[in-house]
Amino acid sequence: MSQLSEREILDRLRALDTSELSDALDRHGVAGQCHGLFPVDRAMHFAGQAFTVRYGPAGSPPGDVGDFIDDLGPGTVVVLDNQGRTDATVWGDLLTSVASVRGVAGTVIDGVCRDSSVCVDLGYPVFSRGRWMRTGKDRVQVEAYQAPVSIGGVRVVPSDYLIGDADGVVVVPAGEVTTVLASAEEIRDAEQQIRKLVGAGARLREAREQTGYHRLQSRAEG
Amino acid sequence: MSQLSEREILDRLRALDTSELSDALDRHGVAGQCHGLFPVDRAMHFAGQAFTVRYGPAGSPPGDVGDFIDDLGPGTVVVLDNQGRTDATVWGDLLTSVASVRGVAGTVIDGVCRDSSVCVDLGYPVFSRGRWMRTGKDRVQVEAYQAPVSIGGVRVVPSDYLIGDADGVVVVPAGEVTTVLASAEEIRDAEQQIRKLVGAGARLREAREQTGYHRLQSRAEG
Amino acid sequence: MSQLSEREILDRLRALDTSELSDALDRHGVAGQCHGLFPVDRAMHFAGQAFTVRYGPAGSPPGDVGDFIDDLGPGTVVVLDNQGRTDATVWGDLLTSVASVRGVAGTVIDGVCRDSSVCVDLGYPVFSRGRWMRTGKDRVQVEAYQAPVSIGGVRVVPSDYLIGDADGVVVVPAGEVTTVLASAEEIRDAEQQIRKLVGAGARLREAREQTGYHRLQSRAEG
Repeated sequence: MSQLSEREILDRLRALDTSELSDALDRHGVAGQCHGLFPVDRAMHFAGQAFTVRYGPAGSPPGDVGDFIDDLGPGTVVVLDNQGRTDATVWGDLLTSVASVRGVAGTVIDGVCRDSSVCVDLGYPVFSRGRWMRTGKDRVQVEAYQAPVSIGGVRVVPSDYLIGDADGVVVVPAGEVTTVLASAEEIRDAEQQIRKLVGAGARLREAREQTGYHRLQSRAEG
Repeated sequence: MSQLSEREILDRLRALDTSELSDALDRHGVAGQCHGLFPVDRAMHFAGQAFTVRYGPAGSPPGDVGDFIDDLGPGTVVVLDNQGRTDATVWGDLLTSVASVRGVAGTVIDGVCRDSSVCVDLGYPVFSRGRWMRTGKDRVQVEAYQAPVSIGGVRVVPSDYLIGDADGVVVVPAGEVTTVLASAEEIRDAEQQIRKLVGAGARLREAREQTGYHRLQSRAEG
Repeated sequence: MSQLSEREILDRLRALDTSELSDALDRHGVAGQCHGLFPVDRAMHFAGQAFTVRYGPAGSPPGDVGDFIDDLGPGTVVVLDNQGRTDATVWGDLLTSVASVRGVAGTVIDGVCRDSSVCVDLGYPVFSRGRWMRTGKDRVQVEAYQAPVSIGGVRVVPSDYLIGDADGVVVVPAGEVTTVLASAEEIRDAEQQIRKLVGAGARLREAREQTGYHRLQSRAEG
């Protein structure tokens, strides 16, 4: 199999939804489904490669909350691990505005964001545990850039692929992306075939059997 | 009182909202308010009779996740008891598509659904504890069809009536539906009368007293 | 500084968002950010002075659930402390209708509301922990009017200022409102200046430094 370009990978990922990718992850035994993270608005979706930031409680004196956005661009998703905290935000309107102008793919936070209406107005995808207005400034601080982080129970390392839509966020490890893409596309094609059969009058049970659908979701044999 | 047809019952239930039905359930001492279940989209609403499915953790080898939709139709609501699990879905886009074409009234899940944007696009009512993209396949399996189930803390048996709107889901036991309907309609009429009095300048307190509103919500004397 | 009129205060509060006010509260060491309370619809916002009601579990026989709305009007926000309960509502469609007609600024509930679609249809702002359809009647009762209450972890006394938008609710104590307003407006102006600099090509880091933005959010020195 020839090497895919990053651009080609992102284009193919964007043509899939998180359900199809999740089934493909299951098939290959990869636990990449982030629990509890949803878009600020249901219509938001993205695909990108991770730039990771890990936060921890602020020390004394408190460290800074991150000045990293000026160097990011298209194809990158900002991945912020704030340990699931819902009491201190690490993303707000200034970051949203700059990220949106720079064409950043989106932001995924294991924590909360603020100025949520600006994300909606600009159509900039933010996925989080929710929203609040209280800043993380003097409450949390950056502990590491581009280190492994934990997002909704899933390990993310820099350059992993993240994809988000109304049903949440999935992580595809960079080393598995070619395999997972192929399986997800096979699943999508089978589902389209099932829809065609059902549209022509078949029972769902028969259409699923005929296309071997259930087998596609199950763990591939070793 | 002459026997009502199922169609007549559903028509009258659809003309009520869950608040009115909840007050009527209170009046008759019936605990039918499901806690924690909401529509995927606020505009969704339905009334139907329960077809129940009970799920449990998958065994080894795992059992199937259910092929029942081909035999259901209008007037039926699919009621899926997945024990409140938020980590494994039991409803997705293929089921939504077939249910929508077959005119099924809606789906109520004590658990989560996936492909939520398809429900919204098709206007098919799904009520659940939320959404995620990870399949229940190989994680849960059907334990029983048409057995008693637990939905948001409420017992549901096959053919019970379920009604859902923006405020959640209520269950009216089939044996109580005539009585509950009559009380709910009495409450609705009193509220319309209150709105008329208030619109004509009455104070809310007086309008409530004049119509005996508070009495209508209280437990009827034995 | 000359005394501001209540009307002038409310006009200036309405021109700010909860993030700006939250940063100003932080600056003055005031813990006024209510946790876990959000609008029924993202577009809702309000500013008003608190009329407080404290609820407790219903006794035997149960007390009443409150008849207070007839005497409230513009500039007032109804603040209902139902101890965070999600199993019994203290606000519904009749109260929404009357409050809307009377021009009440909004309702904030540490608990849940019902008839949520009426709030949305009338554009009447309700902020709560969520929604359900089961009445508080015979489950809770009013314990006190115009007493100190606890809302999302924040103490509210009558006539305190509450402001709500998509990111939640903040409380500004009446005695601190002039100081907090001035700081919040200073923060807003700095953010507008940052947006201008970034729009003209500056890096976000430089724009923040140039305007002294981070200093504005930090606790003022004693």
